[in-house]
Amino acid sequence: MKPVEYATAPEEVRAVFDDIMRTRDVEDVNNFWKYLANEPRMLRHVWESLKEIMGPGALDPMVKELIFVAVAITNNCKYCKVSHMAQARAKGATEEMLNEMIAVTALANMTNRLVNAYDPPVDDMFRS
Amino acid sequence: MKPVEYATAPEEVRAVFDDIMRTRDVEDVNNFWKYLANEPRMLRHVWESLKEIMGPGALDPMVKELIFVAVAITNNCKYCKVSHMAQARAKGATEEMLNEMIAVTALANMTNRLVNAYDPPVDDMFRS
Amino acid sequence: MKPVEYATAPEEVRAVFDDIMRTRDVEDVNNFWKYLANEPRMLRHVWESLKEIMGPGALDPMVKELIFVAVAITNNCKYCKVSHMAQARAKGATEEMLNEMIAVTALANMTNRLVNAYDPPVDDMFRS
Amino acid sequence: MKPVEYATAPEEVRAVFDDIMRTRDVEDVNNFWKYLANEPRMLRHVWESLKEIMGPGALDPMVKELIFVAVAITNNCKYCKVSHMAQARAKGATEEMLNEMIAVTALANMTNRLVNAYDPPVDDMFRS
Amino acid sequence: MKPVEYATAPEEVRAVFDDIMRTRDVEDVNNFWKYLANEPRMLRHVWESLKEIMGPGALDPMVKELIFVAVAITNNCKYCKVSHMAQARAKGATEEMLNEMIAVTALANMTNRLVNAYDPPVDDMFRS
Amino acid sequence: MKPVEYATAPEEVRAVFDDIMRTRDVEDVNNFWKYLANEPRMLRHVWESLKEIMGPGALDPMVKELIFVAVAITNNCKYCKVSHMAQARAKGATEEMLNEMIAVTALANMTNRLVNAYDPPVDDMFRS
Repeated sequence: MKPVEYATAPEEVRAVFDDIMRTRDVEDVNNFWKYLANEPRMLRHVWESLKEIMGPGALDPMVKELIFVAVAITNNCKYCKVSHMAQARAKGATEEMLNEMIAVTALANMTNRLVNAYDPPVDDMFRS
Repeated sequence: MKPVEYATAPEEVRAVFDDIMRTRDVEDVNNFWKYLANEPRMLRHVWESLKEIMGPGALDPMVKELIFVAVAITNNCKYCKVSHMAQARAKGATEEMLNEMIAVTALANMTNRLVNAYDPPVDDMFRS
Repeated sequence: MKPVEYATAPEEVRAVFDDIMRTRDVEDVNNFWKYLANEPRMLRHVWESLKEIMGPGALDPMVKELIFVAVAITNNCKYCKVSHMAQARAKGATEEMLNEMIAVTALANMTNRLVNAYDPPVDDMFRS
Repeated sequence: MKPVEYATAPEEVRAVFDDIMRTRDVEDVNNFWKYLANEPRMLRHVWESLKEIMGPGALDPMVKELIFVAVAITNNCKYCKVSHMAQARAKGATEEMLNEMIAVTALANMTNRLVNAYDPPVDDMFRS
Repeated sequence: MKPVEYATAPEEVRAVFDDIMRTRDVEDVNNFWKYLANEPRMLRHVWESLKEIMGPGALDPMVKELIFVAVAITNNCKYCKVSHMAQARAKGATEEMLNEMIAVTALANMTNRLVNAYDPPVDDMFRS
Repeated sequence: MKPVEYATAPEEVRAVFDDIMRTRDVEDVNNFWKYLANEPRMLRHVWESLKEIMGPGALDPMVKELIFVAVAITNNCKYCKVSHMAQARAKGATEEMLNEMIAVTALANMTNRLVNAYDPPVDDMFRS
């Protein structure tokens, strides 16, 4: 499938592209959005969800980018990793932070499988 | 496989259990460690890795617990989720923070698949 | 590992290649089969399974290709995605259908993680 | 985390619950929504996305439920599987269709790994 | 879906059940096969594939059970894990072997994510 | 992130690199270690874990490499697959063994999903 460029995009796609560019103060949307525009309904839902959840909230926006990257690394999604790693850096993440996030992600993937293997019952202290 | 209890554990396992209890200031280790003690070499490696990486460092320890939970949710590891969610709360995570972390994790899993599907080329601005 | 070409393939591999070409009315098998021919037993089992299940049955063959692609997108298998997307188109899938299938796949991956996180008990109405 | 019940839900949650009940013509929302209501922003985004994408469109709604179940099976999400299998049946899926969808999902997961292992180059005929 | 019991199974299912019992020298098939019998075509294909691949071949049958368990642990499939762990033990795997296999599986899941994160180029010495 | 080369590596990284080269009798470390050296703590933990677990133990070292590759194939980690496949060959794995390991891995991924779909209860004979 081919990317949808602004010049030839239908009205509903342009509206989302405009909002992305305005919100992020950039002059073009990155490739993810141009390809997703093949499905204008998802383009709108995904953008509105990300705009609200990844912005100011209970967690620091930089922390949310780190969580996003941790999931992308777990799922082996390269584009997701490099794009959100760039956003994490733009929001203040240092190389030390990124390396430590990678370490946590790797260790979690290891201990997840140790739990799958040994199947320990949930301790009483962890029951809510 | 059965959990290894302190009373009957070999010396090398007891040494790790002691260090866990001392480091965390708790009176017993949780089930994960008792089961992992079936493989004393991994017990030691996993504990030493977690002790160093999950402690003070470039990222706030609470943030590292949130990343751990995000991976556990992605991989559907229930024990890992409830145990590290408990640790995140103990280190200051509010319910709002936990819910927002869950939202980020879910959205990342969605956009990872949109990227898998549309396969957008990495934008120049994301190249390091 | 290298692909196995018809000219130099052992008899048992040729028999499967012949059946693939005859069944699909093509003049050569695609790369998947040439590589899988390194393990002639699996070549035969996989072909016989796919031939029976992906052909006429309870579901429309085009729908089965869409399901195949949804799994490939979830697992991030690029070759699987492009080859079965081509077959879906050949069996009548429109671009609108493909985009909608992608949207469903992405949403399912998101809600799967929301369920992992919140762990809602199965409602009585869903119990069989 | 605990489910949010209608009686004590905040206004924004009630609005979504009302829309779900009205759209689906049911007298209560299922547990997924009650738990997701802990994060009212995601409750709204997920519902609006599912309402639009899973309703009438390019694909038959029953087919979309089958795709949803195929992803849930791939990811091992039990609640997702039983809830969307129930919806697939309600929209006309027969047992034969469900069994065939399961067969396709299982075969796709197998061939995905054969591709990961042998890494066949994409054939020219599959390039768009 | 309900299990298919021998007494009421159709002929084609009985033939597979008979072959499983004869091959494994057991008096009943385990639940996996009874449920899979809801899709008799897959019952046959899966049994014939497993019968051929998991039997005598290039690798020791016990080693093949260990590989099977490693995949089940990675994918968090509990039934698969316990059933193939039982078969590994029946074919000679000791507790030390099982614990070491679990350790390897966990480490591989960790290093897989470190590779996803750092994306090292494939060294010349690893190119075939 | 960039690889860390020996010439400019900090002392703690050089110590690990030296131990890898000495243990494996090679003149340079492969790219995985050079990139992982961006996080010297993980470099040390991962190396010490792999060195102990992948060496002589309850299982044949070649078998452990096969298990490692089976996980890498399941997770679609290409670098992991080619590097450990090279080590499996170096430790005696034949092409027949590698192809059979791939077959087992693929079949396990298929049956894992059949179990996810049909959810058979664990048979009494598999309970420990």
